[in-house]
Amino acid sequence: MRFSLTSQTSTDGVTEQSFALGEIPGVLFTPRGATGPRPLILMGHGGGQHKKAPGVLTGARRFATEGGFAVVAIDAPNHGDRPKDEQFIQFAGDMRARMAAGEDPTELVAAMHDLLAGQAVADWQAVVTAVQELDHVGAGPVGYWGVSMGCGLGVPLLAAEPRVRAAVLGLLGVHGLAGTAARVTVPVQFLLQWDDTRVPRDQALALFDALGSSDKTLHANPGDHGEIPAYETDDALRFFARHCG
Amino acid sequence: MRFSLTSQTSTDGVTEQSFALGEIPGVLFTPRGATGPRPLILMGHGGGQHKKAPGVLTGARRFATEGGFAVVAIDAPNHGDRPKDEQFIQFAGDMRARMAAGEDPTELVAAMHDLLAGQAVADWQAVVTAVQELDHVGAGPVGYWGVSMGCGLGVPLLAAEPRVRAAVLGLLGVHGLAGTAARVTVPVQFLLQWDDTRVPRDQALALFDALGSSDKTLHANPGDHGEIPAYETDDALRFFARHCG
Repeated sequence: MRFSLTSQTSTDGVTEQSFALGEIPGVLFTPRGATGPRPLILMGHGGGQHKKAPGVLTGARRFATEGGFAVVAIDAPNHGDRPKDEQFIQFAGDMRARMAAGEDPTELVAAMHDLLAGQAVADWQAVVTAVQELDHVGAGPVGYWGVSMGCGLGVPLLAAEPRVRAAVLGLLGVHGLAGTAARVTVPVQFLLQWDDTRVPRDQALALFDALGSSDKTLHANPGDHGEIPAYETDDALRFFARHCG
Repeated sequence: MRFSLTSQTSTDGVTEQSFALGEIPGVLFTPRGATGPRPLILMGHGGGQHKKAPGVLTGARRFATEGGFAVVAIDAPNHGDRPKDEQFIQFAGDMRARMAAGEDPTELVAAMHDLLAGQAVADWQAVVTAVQELDHVGAGPVGYWGVSMGCGLGVPLLAAEPRVRAAVLGLLGVHGLAGTAARVTVPVQFLLQWDDTRVPRDQALALFDALGSSDKTLHANPGDHGEIPAYETDDALRFFARHCG
């Protein structure tokens, strides 16, 4: 696949380089003026979001400036600047209808993640290889950050890809993931929102429980699905510094 | 009550002053050479332990050296250098017998904490008043750290004493504490051991849930009752720096 940088900007000490790797649109965040190898954090966005969603940007910029990390975010299959296929459009419509009707979308969410996971894992593997060839990224340790759909696609990545050696995951239940989660062995920091109206608490606790990692820690905080407190970004930064620094 | 210093030593940058406040034996940890007011952390030990138990010492010394805090630990009623009364001896014997028989000690543990709580709260209130009169402690913010029995006696303290403005708690279930926990409103970091053989997981989750605090965070880690990972001391230090620093 061809890797091409499409634009570059620098703001507040962070250089953002937009790129395309074949059909995968992405953005690479590095500390301004960075040279030489450094740890790399992959950031997976949530369902319906994209590579520059606010939650991704906030983390990426802090990881780059405060941790000195390279951070790469890509659009997941059928998200952001990527084309949507028929099957995905059908799924997304069914899910909206089910949620509007007040029904439990757990089964459909799991099925959608399963639909996307094969491509998403292949995308991340290609992206790691490509960006680690850049002089200011290099072949350092790799971490993964992703919650909600970012967790649903991250768990299969962690189970498949030994270059990723630590992950912040969360905001997702165990449905459809128990077997894959058991094959994850790297350190995990798992975020749970105590009052999550989309993910039943016992299902999220069960996903944490299912992770095969001996070194795993659960951080639960009050609030709904999207209301992760800001101090969890501090904690994620320290977690990545500990395991990938 | 009379406050008297009984001995003083300094090791590795920490001055430890043993004291008696009336019948309460305690130890005060401050950074060596400390002058002037500073935040104060109260440390409550576990059941059967005492003011210089290893888990208390490790935290106290790090809070003093790395956080610049004053830290005070006291023997709980019927523990350490304090006399044991008849009722406590009876309770402790019953509890050992029940645990040896493989029975659930939850009821008895809760009853014992209830037996000790009135005196323990009064002790802490007197100790805060006394040590804050010392020049190198002063009237700064106060935090509380206590797990297991230290949590069982800490929850009533937090419900009763407005001078304590943040707490690290955990390793205990909700039994007998739901009403008191609901009256706790200060920020809490709650530790749960995922494989705790003494505290059922759902009971510990229920105690976290019962806390009235809007700012509370649960940290769960693999391992049994006493196996809190070392990085939770780092996290406690940052938690106290954020809320009492």
